Amino acid sequence: MKAAFQGVHGAYSELASKQLLGSRVRTLPCESFADVFDAVAGGAAERGILPIENSLAGSIHQNYDLLLDRDLHIVGEAYLKVEHALLCHPSASLRAITEVRSHPQALAQCSGFFAKNKGIKPAPYFDTAGAAESLAREAPIHIGAIASAYAAELYGLKVLKRNLQNHADNFTRFLAVAKRPLPAKRSTTAGLPFKTSLAFMPKRNAVGSLHAILGVIAGRGIDLLKIESRPNPLSPFEYWFYADLAGGPGALAVAQALRELEPLVSRLKILGGYPRAPRAGSRPVPANRSKHA
Amino acid sequence: MKAAFQGVHGAYSELASKQLLGSRVRTLPCESFADVFDAVAGGAAERGILPIENSLAGSIHQNYDLLLDRDLHIVGEAYLKVEHALLCHPSASLRAITEVRSHPQALAQCSGFFAKNKGIKPAPYFDTAGAAESLAREAPIHIGAIASAYAAELYGLKVLKRNLQNHADNFTRFLAVAKRPLPAKRSTTAGLPFKTSLAFMPKRNAVGSLHAILGVIAGRGIDLLKIESRPNPLSPFEYWFYADLAGGPGALAVAQALRELEPLVSRLKILGGYPRAPRAGSRPVPANRSKHA
Repeated sequence: MKAAFQGVHGAYSELASKQLLGSRVRTLPCESFADVFDAVAGGAAERGILPIENSLAGSIHQNYDLLLDRDLHIVGEAYLKVEHALLCHPSASLRAITEVRSHPQALAQCSGFFAKNKGIKPAPYFDTAGAAESLAREAPIHIGAIASAYAAELYGLKVLKRNLQNHADNFTRFLAVAKRPLPAKRSTTAGLPFKTSLAFMPKRNAVGSLHAILGVIAGRGIDLLKIESRPNPLSPFEYWFYADLAGGPGALAVAQALRELEPLVSRLKILGGYPRAPRAGSRPVPANRSKHA
Repeated sequence: MKAAFQGVHGAYSELASKQLLGSRVRTLPCESFADVFDAVAGGAAERGILPIENSLAGSIHQNYDLLLDRDLHIVGEAYLKVEHALLCHPSASLRAITEVRSHPQALAQCSGFFAKNKGIKPAPYFDTAGAAESLAREAPIHIGAIASAYAAELYGLKVLKRNLQNHADNFTRFLAVAKRPLPAKRSTTAGLPFKTSLAFMPKRNAVGSLHAILGVIAGRGIDLLKIESRPNPLSPFEYWFYADLAGGPGALAVAQALRELEPLVSRLKILGGYPRAPRAGSRPVPANRSKHA
């Protein structure tokens, strides 16, 4: 199995591909999210791995746009805890470090470290994994990088400190996309319940149209796991909603609800039905062993 | 009037402060969003200016967290079109440029430009305005920056190209926050209708609780302008919703709906009532002159 991801080897997206598809998955680095879709659609990879929302930074609308525009299907999800580590070349030490490279967002997420270490200058870089790779290539003894411990392992670097980030709870949700959807009839896999992701556009200007739509979902006893309106400042009365429902698209209640939604929406797209990730940070466990898994 | 914003002079947030409060507003650059809240709470500035959602990158949950945790109130909003320009020192020219500095996200948003100009290397920087400032300071003739045309004006730089970004429709919504809310009874200002932003947590584990909540809103004939669930991967069944309603918190229908919501939620916070921004990109016009303003 080969998985395409945006970034360079060692990126958090590559780590997510291993969490989703096992440590033996082969990976294909891509320059952009659109390239990830192209790689899967063109057959260069069987899966695409996409960040879709982050607990601090929100939903990545760009990837929802691609899911709406292209014909790939969500077949899996995973939550990854973003744990930034301070890395250096094996011959370097913390005492010698005067500069630390990383993506500006990662540098900002570790501002507490720089406040405590005034002698260390943050240096912006394209991405966390690229900063790690540059240390392996250039072997400087006075420069560090902020990236994952996984990137350290990959590039043969030393981990000086773990959990450098200010906020302990920084999670990113990743999706796996594929050319073909999972069989619609499945509603559990190895004890994991399914969920269905969809996007819809309520009929224009109808006050309460969302209420009617949620009435259909609630009326069938389906749990709503996510709901989000997509801002469209150019046309504020015509907007997409993203929703995640408990249950696969082939489960009776979900299938009935989807049929009942049709007259209430001007557009509707099922983005995929797939096993629901267990609680963040934990390994997959059968649903009967963890109430909220 | 003084407005605090995150970033350095020339940032898009500073430009938003001028759109919201007029070109004569004085501004106070802050290092973090939390510092913006501190500046307003401590009296160093009367307003804080915060990006809250972007049409490509989504809602900035960090700022919602601060709105929930701190005691400031939303008193205004504005949509700003993100228009990246290519800037250089006045003595430089496009032909001489071999490197362009900017925030990695802005560099990625202008990837089409770099694909067409293979001789120009993108160079990551902390922020767009800081990249512009560095050109003014260092006066290199072979380095450009991607930032707003406003940053060029501020730092005396030359605008080589406008609208460098791949996507024409990149908007950021900004909020103005203040120590005291606007008078609750107001529901229009100079012909602009109000909106009310709130955050609520439905009673735990109640299937259809969001449906009941939206029923209260729809039942009062109130338009829902935004709804979004805040992902909480650590506790997937206990989550906040953000909602924007048409109408000020003192408007009869909204006030009644807010009272009716109380038994349905375990937590509820009114984040503010404020004049609704007109359609993105346009200047404020009275509501009777623009249907959707």
